[in-house]
Amino acid sequence: MDNLNIGRHISGQFNEDLERVINHVMQMGGLVQKQVTDSLQAVSEADEDLAKQVLANDYQINNFEVSIDDECTRIIAKRQPAAGDLRLILAIIKTIADLERIGDEAEKIAEVATESFSKSQQDLLNSLENLGNRVASFLQATLDCFTRMDAEAAIEAHKMDSKIDKEYEALMRQLMTYMMEDPRSIPQVMSVIWSARALERIGDRCQNICEYIIYFVKGKVVRHTSPEDM
Amino acid sequence: MDNLNIGRHISGQFNEDLERVINHVMQMGGLVQKQVTDSLQAVSEADEDLAKQVLANDYQINNFEVSIDDECTRIIAKRQPAAGDLRLILAIIKTIADLERIGDEAEKIAEVATESFSKSQQDLLNSLENLGNRVASFLQATLDCFTRMDAEAAIEAHKMDSKIDKEYEALMRQLMTYMMEDPRSIPQVMSVIWSARALERIGDRCQNICEYIIYFVKGKVVRHTSPEDM
Repeated sequence: MDNLNIGRHISGQFNEDLERVINHVMQMGGLVQKQVTDSLQAVSEADEDLAKQVLANDYQINNFEVSIDDECTRIIAKRQPAAGDLRLILAIIKTIADLERIGDEAEKIAEVATESFSKSQQDLLNSLENLGNRVASFLQATLDCFTRMDAEAAIEAHKMDSKIDKEYEALMRQLMTYMMEDPRSIPQVMSVIWSARALERIGDRCQNICEYIIYFVKGKVVRHTSPEDM
Repeated sequence: MDNLNIGRHISGQFNEDLERVINHVMQMGGLVQKQVTDSLQAVSEADEDLAKQVLANDYQINNFEVSIDDECTRIIAKRQPAAGDLRLILAIIKTIADLERIGDEAEKIAEVATESFSKSQQDLLNSLENLGNRVASFLQATLDCFTRMDAEAAIEAHKMDSKIDKEYEALMRQLMTYMMEDPRSIPQVMSVIWSARALERIGDRCQNICEYIIYFVKGKVVRHTSPEDM
């Protein structure tokens, strides 16, 4: 967290505020990560209890979002941060919105694990595994970048999304073929498709968070910028 | 825009800043609305040229997002707003992020209009019309609430989303049945499904914007609150 230059602030109180809010974001990030890996495990092991636990835990993520957002607003109002400090707070406000929605996507995946699949259809769910692993790694990398506020690492991590998109498209083609060959399977395959879509969306949201980190460190908006220009 | 109480600010410069940024959000909102209605028209009239125009226009929405975000950051840094003023700027920062993503959803809908559908399949696309009209009305209502910063109207508008969700689910069931009856149509039906999904997502994002308006006016976070409690 060297990039935060926390030492340089004249106001010790401001440092404490910043450190506290960053700690809360990390706690929230850890919880979101657990929700995503638990939902994937629930699907791959057809573990309905674990899936229900994921659904029951989502409110904690929502609470984190509301309280951190409130914390950030109060810091801006009280400490009137400028330049880098303000960019950091704004980056945090945006990050927690994306984290909260990653939590919602985990819920969608968990819901699929509460549906009943025949043994042969369980293979279908297993087809999510590669995509799931890739997305979980991206989320891990993104949270690491956030913890270290490392823009270079965020630029690298950002590129992981294009592989996720390719894997997602390949899986989608495979699932469409499956539906055409066995139309009775359509409702189940559609559930798998929604899970795959949720995973793809998590990738997009990790990419957003990487962009906020780059914005904070470099002071430059890189949304809507091609990977090369970045 | 009476709720903004623009008259009460001591600094005339701050008033000008606020009015300018709100005007920019309204311009952005108007453009987003046009993109959504154009994409729907492109689908219903199989108008490939119009669809391409929607795809070509998206960069303007992205530019709006980046420049308004930048404007808001500079206002916070320079004017150090507190309480209601700060809440307004933060609500704007969040609103433009959702508007930008509504623009992305319009792009997804327009992409479907660039695909080729047989005459009989064109009926499928027409099934989007009701959902599309409903979503376009919700977007219109949301932008009206924003223009007037009317929290009561935002609470009312917020409820429109549950009807959209119901319509979306009914359409989804219909499309699944269609696929099961005619598996050769699956690729085309999937395109319609993605458009329907995009519309449903636009509804969710309008709902977010209503919540930001309520947050600004009432100073209360209503995300994750049931409609009754709201």
